[in-house]
Amino acid sequence: MINKLVEKIQKTHAPIVVGLDPMLDYIPEHVLERAFQDCGETLEGAAEAIWQFNKEIIDNIYDLIPAVKPQIAMYEQFGISGLIAFKKTIDYCHEKELIVIGDIKRGDIGSTSAAYATGHIGRVTVGSKTYAPLEEDFITINPYLGTDGVKPFVEVCKKEKKGLFILVKTSNPSSGEFQDKLIEGRPLYEHVGEKVAQWGADCMGDSYSYIGAVVGATYPEMGKILRNVMPKSFILVPGYGAQGGKGADLVHFFNEDGLGAIVNSSRGIIAAYKQELYAKFGNEHFGEASRAAVEDMIKDIDGALQAAK
Amino acid sequence: MINKLVEKIQKTHAPIVVGLDPMLDYIPEHVLERAFQDCGETLEGAAEAIWQFNKEIIDNIYDLIPAVKPQIAMYEQFGISGLIAFKKTIDYCHEKELIVIGDIKRGDIGSTSAAYATGHIGRVTVGSKTYAPLEEDFITINPYLGTDGVKPFVEVCKKEKKGLFILVKTSNPSSGEFQDKLIEGRPLYEHVGEKVAQWGADCMGDSYSYIGAVVGATYPEMGKILRNVMPKSFILVPGYGAQGGKGADLVHFFNEDGLGAIVNSSRGIIAAYKQELYAKFGNEHFGEASRAAVEDMIKDIDGALQAAK
Repeated sequence: MINKLVEKIQKTHAPIVVGLDPMLDYIPEHVLERAFQDCGETLEGAAEAIWQFNKEIIDNIYDLIPAVKPQIAMYEQFGISGLIAFKKTIDYCHEKELIVIGDIKRGDIGSTSAAYATGHIGRVTVGSKTYAPLEEDFITINPYLGTDGVKPFVEVCKKEKKGLFILVKTSNPSSGEFQDKLIEGRPLYEHVGEKVAQWGADCMGDSYSYIGAVVGATYPEMGKILRNVMPKSFILVPGYGAQGGKGADLVHFFNEDGLGAIVNSSRGIIAAYKQELYAKFGNEHFGEASRAAVEDMIKDIDGALQAAK
Repeated sequence: MINKLVEKIQKTHAPIVVGLDPMLDYIPEHVLERAFQDCGETLEGAAEAIWQFNKEIIDNIYDLIPAVKPQIAMYEQFGISGLIAFKKTIDYCHEKELIVIGDIKRGDIGSTSAAYATGHIGRVTVGSKTYAPLEEDFITINPYLGTDGVKPFVEVCKKEKKGLFILVKTSNPSSGEFQDKLIEGRPLYEHVGEKVAQWGADCMGDSYSYIGAVVGATYPEMGKILRNVMPKSFILVPGYGAQGGKGADLVHFFNEDGLGAIVNSSRGIIAAYKQELYAKFGNEHFGEASRAAVEDMIKDIDGALQAAK
């Protein structure tokens, strides 16, 4: 799957991923109204609105980008109905040949991590049959429990040719509270980064490992260091746009081959129609506003990479 | 909710929680067969088997214990069908007046943590209506992202009178890899424990905070230290039984009032019928075997607490 990601990035010139993290207040009134007419002001109605919103955006951007990253929390907040919309979104993205990074940040003791891995990127056996329940291509995971909580995910990746992005340095303001603490003179996130490199060493695709890392766009200096700590790991970079990161800040997340990182934007793309810059599209054409925002993001990041050459 | 937990512990003399973490190979053949006959060898069939298995166990033990702890991964591995069984289990436990601790170990940046909190212990607004999607009473969460990733959960707890157990020192063998690293002379888990005490300080019930911690039974010495670091936090203690912890090892997780900790057992209770000790019940009466195992666990832990007085 990492080879497919690299190939799609090279084809689209877009080392970016669009976060499908729908909040109800991102969704234009006409989409909400139609969904509530069909399903009522219910959890099903909210899920239907999310699904219709996602579909319109995907239809407008799928040819420009390699991958999407649905944040499962935004679906889980509507319970089972929301999770059905999550699964429907994954399946539709696959129809459009997009790579799906499930932003799930799971992590637990060994047998429990194995169950999460099975559900999200693996297959489960029921009697004589086998099923792939959620079928993401990559997932994000939390490293706090250490190697035996991570290994079951790695094992499933090897078997199914899937991939991981492991939290190393997150984009939020408090991320330093534990992640920056010095241990033997180096911050915790560097220790975690080293482990990511180790865990990924025997999971190599053609040029990069299946096992990647999450490092926030909001910490470009740390991105530079971590790039060297994990040279063969793809870095998923959240925090572009709405959280404050800019293209020029991000060049050090990439290797000299112009690869090795994939930058996420969520609100900046899916709620683009709400920005003054894209207001001309109007609420009705929110999908086209998202397309314009993706094109601008590609220009910003590809431009910064070209300028850094 | 913490007051209700304390009250129920005092009433049952059972500072224990039963982990409803069904694996298909814990489920007796006759339960599996019936479910597969009704729903086929499908994800729905697996979920039906899990639900029937849970129900039989709950019916046999609900009067002995204050709380159950379903591990969501074991349901999530069967996708949407599994999650429907998770929700059904929560609702049934509430009918039986059990407190439900959702073992979900979520944690993310602020807005995303807020969505998880809404879905699991809060309420979500859809148009003019409000819903409680999953409706657990407590949930477990992961602290790696720091205060701004934890606060949204705390806020929902205050509003809804729900509670948290935050991972401090986990029960698995590799937990020391990051959690034990020394920072300014003290291990990371102590720093996290201090934060738990701080986060919980303005969320007090009558005698304990809504904001508790997870500390593994497999590390009793650390439990002793952490008990003092977080005197007002309830400690959820996994790792009893199958993972190696014993009653006598656990007394230091409790305060002098005999409260302050709740010990979890999962496999040791729900798959008790597979142990030699409870084999006399036979596969057909697996629920009665679970009841006997709960009675033995209460004796072990209550006995150790009495002996330590």
